[in-house]
Amino acid sequence: MSANRPTTMLTETVRRLVHHGAVPNVVKICQKTRPEDVAALFRSLTPAESRRLFDILFQHDRELSAEVLEEMAPQDVDELFEVLGDEKVCKVLQELPQEEATRLLELLPIERAERVLEMMRDETSEGVRFHLKYPEETAGRIMSTDFLALDEGLTVEEAIRQIQSTTERQMAFYLYVVDEREHLLGVISLRRLLMVRPETRLGQMIGEDVISARTWDDQEQVARIVAKYNLLAVPVVDRYNRLVGIVPVDDVVDILREEATEDMFRLAGTDEEEITARSTWTSVRLRLPWLLASLVGGFCAVLIASHYEATLAGIVAIAFFIPPVLGMGGNVGTQSSTIVVRGLATGNIAPSEFLRVVFKEVRIALLLGLLYGLLLGVAAWAMTRDLLLAGVVSSGLLVSMLLAALIGSALPILFQKLGVDPAVATGPFVTTATDTLGILAYLGLASLLLL
Amino acid sequence: MSANRPTTMLTETVRRLVHHGAVPNVVKICQKTRPEDVAALFRSLTPAESRRLFDILFQHDRELSAEVLEEMAPQDVDELFEVLGDEKVCKVLQELPQEEATRLLELLPIERAERVLEMMRDETSEGVRFHLKYPEETAGRIMSTDFLALDEGLTVEEAIRQIQSTTERQMAFYLYVVDEREHLLGVISLRRLLMVRPETRLGQMIGEDVISARTWDDQEQVARIVAKYNLLAVPVVDRYNRLVGIVPVDDVVDILREEATEDMFRLAGTDEEEITARSTWTSVRLRLPWLLASLVGGFCAVLIASHYEATLAGIVAIAFFIPPVLGMGGNVGTQSSTIVVRGLATGNIAPSEFLRVVFKEVRIALLLGLLYGLLLGVAAWAMTRDLLLAGVVSSGLLVSMLLAALIGSALPILFQKLGVDPAVATGPFVTTATDTLGILAYLGLASLLLL
Repeated sequence: MSANRPTTMLTETVRRLVHHGAVPNVVKICQKTRPEDVAALFRSLTPAESRRLFDILFQHDRELSAEVLEEMAPQDVDELFEVLGDEKVCKVLQELPQEEATRLLELLPIERAERVLEMMRDETSEGVRFHLKYPEETAGRIMSTDFLALDEGLTVEEAIRQIQSTTERQMAFYLYVVDEREHLLGVISLRRLLMVRPETRLGQMIGEDVISARTWDDQEQVARIVAKYNLLAVPVVDRYNRLVGIVPVDDVVDILREEATEDMFRLAGTDEEEITARSTWTSVRLRLPWLLASLVGGFCAVLIASHYEATLAGIVAIAFFIPPVLGMGGNVGTQSSTIVVRGLATGNIAPSEFLRVVFKEVRIALLLGLLYGLLLGVAAWAMTRDLLLAGVVSSGLLVSMLLAALIGSALPILFQKLGVDPAVATGPFVTTATDTLGILAYLGLASLLLL
Repeated sequence: MSANRPTTMLTETVRRLVHHGAVPNVVKICQKTRPEDVAALFRSLTPAESRRLFDILFQHDRELSAEVLEEMAPQDVDELFEVLGDEKVCKVLQELPQEEATRLLELLPIERAERVLEMMRDETSEGVRFHLKYPEETAGRIMSTDFLALDEGLTVEEAIRQIQSTTERQMAFYLYVVDEREHLLGVISLRRLLMVRPETRLGQMIGEDVISARTWDDQEQVARIVAKYNLLAVPVVDRYNRLVGIVPVDDVVDILREEATEDMFRLAGTDEEEITARSTWTSVRLRLPWLLASLVGGFCAVLIASHYEATLAGIVAIAFFIPPVLGMGGNVGTQSSTIVVRGLATGNIAPSEFLRVVFKEVRIALLLGLLYGLLLGVAAWAMTRDLLLAGVVSSGLLVSMLLAALIGSALPILFQKLGVDPAVATGPFVTTATDTLGILAYLGLASLLLL
């Protein structure tokens, strides 16, 4: 199978079979398809179709139904859960690894989640409660408890025999070496296990240091460790350095994508929840706060402008140039803040580089502001034949761009230093500040020079 | 070692030792540190210090110097290469896997790159030329040629013996099964190799389908395959389905991060090159085109405004409200375009969903526009006691937001359908279009209702 073949055909085939109630064919086709591709199907099905397809899988291949559920987009799981009974939700979650069951259970409304948790086998519900103990988005919450940990005293031969007798669902590629109290001592790749003499003890094979995450580490930090050191999984230890889980690289891939989306959405003044939000109301609610802040900023600009009523009434052409003066400032502010927010997120910019970064952004804005200020000034002169007005427009644009670059680069670093997520707070502040300061500078210059 | 310990101490120690010429200590400390952490040191060193540190490593542990170079940020490599002689660059690149040597060679100015390529051993230069055959950002260019491929006819016992005798630098976790002509037949994890009887033939262990990428696939597409199917590496085949390389998941992690940065920067109207750009001039050059487009758009707004000179001269308060009307439109436009561009990039939005997506964004803007239009209208009335003006401001804001949402959501999908990168083209068009259409709607309404 090529991973790139069109799945529209598959969707249409399955949809038709579901409609005709051709149960054995549906089961057969889904079993021959990768769970990820079956999961993608749900994207284009109606809730009724989703429910019927899922019911068929649940009845005839429960394990597959669980695997598919695990790979479905959160909004599709959400929709499906709405039409599935508690008992079915409970049974399918029990088929999943604990951390996955936890993740999916959290998609349910709190009361329903508790009801489903009550219904679960003790084994599963204990596992879920274990993960729920850790705060959201921490290593403890997302870690898999399905790992290979063996005692340092074992020989390679004994280790291989142990591996052969285990039945983990996931494939493991690292073997973690622990002492008799489960303290993490080291890590060995399966490949290295094949390269040494069978009587070698595991304890002899491990180096001094092992990279690990702590249960309370933020998932983003965990992802950065895995990315930096090119790991396939990072072991997670509790505060006594006991090995309690691992975060595999495929989860890290998802985390990095989510975090990037989160930052982009926050910079635009909304929330990453929007990507899973099906309803218009949810989106409206998520965008309300920032737009309100922006409206307040805009109204400040109105008040400032009204303060310069005489100037504007005297030379109405000044008003014409408000859009480019504020617009160009806004653009440069967005550029500076995007570069700094992303730089902070990827570690490319350190908060200690404050002065270097801000100075560079201001220098860029100076050059761009001189160039485009001249250009707009010439245009203003051509339009009005008023050299002084052209000068005001020109310098207004320059000052507006300088202020925007200063605010756009300085604010995110300051937020980071204060422990506030730079992505979440930067957007509103930068646009509001550039709008009000920009118009203040422009109209202030105008009233100073023209009246 | 904890991956989270502060590295400032390490930086200061190494810097001091380098200054004092304490060569053996520098070598020892770097050998005890992970290459990724040594690479991070270069971030805070001056070019002279970088050169001295690198020289020490190069002289005393060339393999380590190559490993460190491989992990360094591109802008640091860039700076280092500027102060290193061609011969040293050549020698250190020869220590690296071919695809890494290719990647780093590309950081050099084209003439210098050719000179270095000429100096290389035939083996390395052939490998580099092999990768250079494939276009930038394709699977062929970035793939590693360091993989385990064994004939389907071998038994598991023979396979394990072969693995034990190979000396790949990278750790491999998958074994690829090929026929006598190198055609890719299947993939087996090392762990599964341990689970079956030694006399089993590899050909018996593989399933029907194997996920693969083609040499000409875009790296982003390759990354999506690996992310979707939770792979640790994806095999790359040529057009005859012969296995020619693999793309491991750690490269995919880097690609996904880079692509997210790229999209963010492009949305803000600059280029991902900015993250590695040290000079102000480079940044200015990268931002020039979009800002010019934006200035042209801003000037269109000026022309439109001047067309309504009589309206503005008649009631100067109309000018006061230009900033919030355009600003709020700009914000909603950015929100819609960010959501759609990111949705298209992650596959969460399909181009076929055009109408649903645009309709949703417009619906959101309608609700937000009604609410904030009312709010701004009330404020306008409180300020001016002019009900008609308040109505104009109110409806101007609403229309400006509706147009912005429409353009912000429709444009990226249209660009995608036309085969244009939605991230690169959306930013300039959306802000320009929202500014001009927004002011046209607002002043048009004003002249219609107020004069």
